Amino acid sequence: MVSERQHKMPAHIDSDGNARMVDISCKNATVREAVASCVVELGQEAFIALKEGNAPKGDVLATARIAGILAAKQVDRLIPLCHSLPLEFVGIDFELSEKERTVTVRARSCTSYKTGVEMEAMTGASIAALAIYDMLKGIEKGITISKLQLEFKSGGKSGTWRKNTP
Amino acid sequence: MVSERQHKMPAHIDSDGNARMVDISCKNATVREAVASCVVELGQEAFIALKEGNAPKGDVLATARIAGILAAKQVDRLIPLCHSLPLEFVGIDFELSEKERTVTVRARSCTSYKTGVEMEAMTGASIAALAIYDMLKGIEKGITISKLQLEFKSGGKSGTWRKNTP
Amino acid sequence: MVSERQHKMPAHIDSDGNARMVDISCKNATVREAVASCVVELGQEAFIALKEGNAPKGDVLATARIAGILAAKQVDRLIPLCHSLPLEFVGIDFELSEKERTVTVRARSCTSYKTGVEMEAMTGASIAALAIYDMLKGIEKGITISKLQLEFKSGGKSGTWRKNTP
Amino acid sequence: MVSERQHKMPAHIDSDGNARMVDISCKNATVREAVASCVVELGQEAFIALKEGNAPKGDVLATARIAGILAAKQVDRLIPLCHSLPLEFVGIDFELSEKERTVTVRARSCTSYKTGVEMEAMTGASIAALAIYDMLKGIEKGITISKLQLEFKSGGKSGTWRKNTP
Amino acid sequence: MVSERQHKMPAHIDSDGNARMVDISCKNATVREAVASCVVELGQEAFIALKEGNAPKGDVLATARIAGILAAKQVDRLIPLCHSLPLEFVGIDFELSEKERTVTVRARSCTSYKTGVEMEAMTGASIAALAIYDMLKGIEKGITISKLQLEFKSGGKSGTWRKNTP
Amino acid sequence: MVSERQHKMPAHIDSDGNARMVDISCKNATVREAVASCVVELGQEAFIALKEGNAPKGDVLATARIAGILAAKQVDRLIPLCHSLPLEFVGIDFELSEKERTVTVRARSCTSYKTGVEMEAMTGASIAALAIYDMLKGIEKGITISKLQLEFKSGGKSGTWRKNTP
Repeated sequence: MVSERQHKMPAHIDSDGNARMVDISCKNATVREAVASCVVELGQEAFIALKEGNAPKGDVLATARIAGILAAKQVDRLIPLCHSLPLEFVGIDFELSEKERTVTVRARSCTSYKTGVEMEAMTGASIAALAIYDMLKGIEKGITISKLQLEFKSGGKSGTWRKNTP
Repeated sequence: MVSERQHKMPAHIDSDGNARMVDISCKNATVREAVASCVVELGQEAFIALKEGNAPKGDVLATARIAGILAAKQVDRLIPLCHSLPLEFVGIDFELSEKERTVTVRARSCTSYKTGVEMEAMTGASIAALAIYDMLKGIEKGITISKLQLEFKSGGKSGTWRKNTP
Repeated sequence: MVSERQHKMPAHIDSDGNARMVDISCKNATVREAVASCVVELGQEAFIALKEGNAPKGDVLATARIAGILAAKQVDRLIPLCHSLPLEFVGIDFELSEKERTVTVRARSCTSYKTGVEMEAMTGASIAALAIYDMLKGIEKGITISKLQLEFKSGGKSGTWRKNTP
Repeated sequence: MVSERQHKMPAHIDSDGNARMVDISCKNATVREAVASCVVELGQEAFIALKEGNAPKGDVLATARIAGILAAKQVDRLIPLCHSLPLEFVGIDFELSEKERTVTVRARSCTSYKTGVEMEAMTGASIAALAIYDMLKGIEKGITISKLQLEFKSGGKSGTWRKNTP
Repeated sequence: MVSERQHKMPAHIDSDGNARMVDISCKNATVREAVASCVVELGQEAFIALKEGNAPKGDVLATARIAGILAAKQVDRLIPLCHSLPLEFVGIDFELSEKERTVTVRARSCTSYKTGVEMEAMTGASIAALAIYDMLKGIEKGITISKLQLEFKSGGKSGTWRKNTP
Repeated sequence: MVSERQHKMPAHIDSDGNARMVDISCKNATVREAVASCVVELGQEAFIALKEGNAPKGDVLATARIAGILAAKQVDRLIPLCHSLPLEFVGIDFELSEKERTVTVRARSCTSYKTGVEMEAMTGASIAALAIYDMLKGIEKGITISKLQLEFKSGGKSGTWRKNTP
């Protein structure tokens, strides 16, 4: 992929098993989108505090939403081999299940660029969930964050992908 | 605006009153520019120290200029719903009024992108003014920063806008 | 103040008018607090949107509060000559005046350290106000941020200081 | 807790349901430690690539370890209401299960300060797992990160806590 | 270059000797590449520890590679007048000379944008070398980093440039 | 060193050759200082531009000084295994040699903490030198940064160390 470049790296410093970014110079910019989600499993007391708006550190979901949006914009600093890219949208939403005492965090990210935005969606969902944990850990330290996964991606050479759901 | 996307967010996580970035995927990239300014109101002693170059922490305006430029490049980290964008220029300039004992800070920012650069200019001016405060607060804690406002913007769907001046 | 150090900087690189951090090695750690405020002057339409919770980008004050808190924790990156310090508290609060169509932003910061937290309060208030601007600029570009100033500080060698109020 | 302060915030800007940092000014500095973990569930192809060291972007675990360590040091930027604190140690370790085709990520963090380091361990484990995802997603997009949870904490007023294990 | 702009900055705030970013609005986006290198001069003991993989803080080159890649993506925050740009590739490689007891660090960066990536390559090489120093300074404090220089650049108006080698 | 901890890491995730931070929990806080330097080798044209203050991007040394100070405060983000620490002072100074056409950059850093500040001085000097390069590379791409090295350190268990000078 580097062969059309004017300057060849000497062979002896060729990478072999070493961490390396993908060179996207020759890729096409296309519209790309990704959706990721995870599930925050709360106990009864934490769920009620969240739902009734009296968590010890205040408004849980508004804070977590901002945390997730800001984190998605910092993916290039957090995930070593990710590219800096012009993120055109990132949104974080929450779905509460009273029966399961869970919050499902869902992040969607979009760009028109040469590489995908899966990590932006995954990281946005993850940090939003961690902010929920932070704001409720005074009530319950055993909160668990599970099933962080990609749900959907579109765009790029590999095209559309959708998580199989049972 | 999301309707042409392949993946619909489920209705129940539709945002309602929640913080959300504007989705700029469908906007056109145009040349965009913004100018913002604010006024740092110094007392007599601080103004003289600034003007004569013997402020307690050294060169006030050179430091404030760099602070403003760096801050404009970090707007996406500071202002939660702002987009990361390829800033093509940011400049910070200062105008001293001996009569008013003020420094007017003016920031100009430019891009060729899908969204405007008003926040880059506003934040650049604001942080430059705060750096002036920081370097002179040893002399006078009562320094006030006023009239932080947009003066001008151009580009994008809403076109050119200019602050009314009395 | 540097005289008790073992290693002297050669005289010819002594700073003269150049930007320099204050050396706080020999200062005492004391409890320090600061309060700063500014006023966001909205027009009628923007004020109503804020108050009624239908601003174009969603929940204005929750977003601005988080922006201010995060900015206060990043002062050492934003204001060149500020020290990195263990910030023990930062809070951002808002006061709406229907008559004036203003939001007063107030930030309070605390530490037990060798230098003051004025810049943390000033920067927290400033960035919170800029986030308000960002979320309402779709309605009204002429919003002005005024009277950014220190209200109060305590602790350290210079002790307690309070803004004169007319 | 604020009552011994010299400067009272006016009652009308008292927070009510709003996001707020905990004021730790009056807390004692004690030795604090936290351990958190999560499980990265790989498919067969991704597990083999990881184990045999031929993942598409190179050395997975060395990269993930650095990502986790760096993220733990940035928790105050990522989790809005967390304090900046002097992190004395953070370590990331990995345990591979060939049978389960999983990597268990474990993060340990330590400080001698006024507040705990649970979020540093949780965030370190989470970002290390996301870096593993990033380096293997070219092989398998369906990798899931599960069971992100606190295992242990010690220090502070609430003392030692240990996750119940079945 | 600013003359085609709609909004003129008033003459009296025209910069004169002051720091300023280059305005790249009118430049063309072209493929640009840069290679930079530096030499880390180790003593015997440090070189052996590096080569045999028993440095006090662990895997030196894997850590330095990640440090260099991450730093190259942060150049706009580190070098005040550099532009934020969409870096399409950055790679860090190392070449050990047993005879000289040196590590040559080489960084290559690429973009398709309006300005060059020399600083990304220079900064990537420099921070990778500093990370090597950090991981070996427990063995030998006198390690020196030398000959940090640009080797090659291509693209843009000034075209291809190559370091003269004796 | 970890033996007095309450929670043991399971043996099977014990690090072996992997990158690891030093655990400084049990170290003593002492006054620590470090001085580092490097030499920027300019050609004739670049040296004259620097000296006469007409470099293409403006005030070289004021900009480089701020860049170096800011970088020293960000060492924990840049050098993966460095600790976040309360830096009490960092200063950057420059010495011009007309005969050699060089700028010697010297950085000094101080803390009262459990670990040393060598990397803060080394990184501050390095980034200041890179900023000089950035501001003069329009004149001369072949500028070289050499002899980045520690000159002096004091404090901590290993005590005072001074570079041998020929």
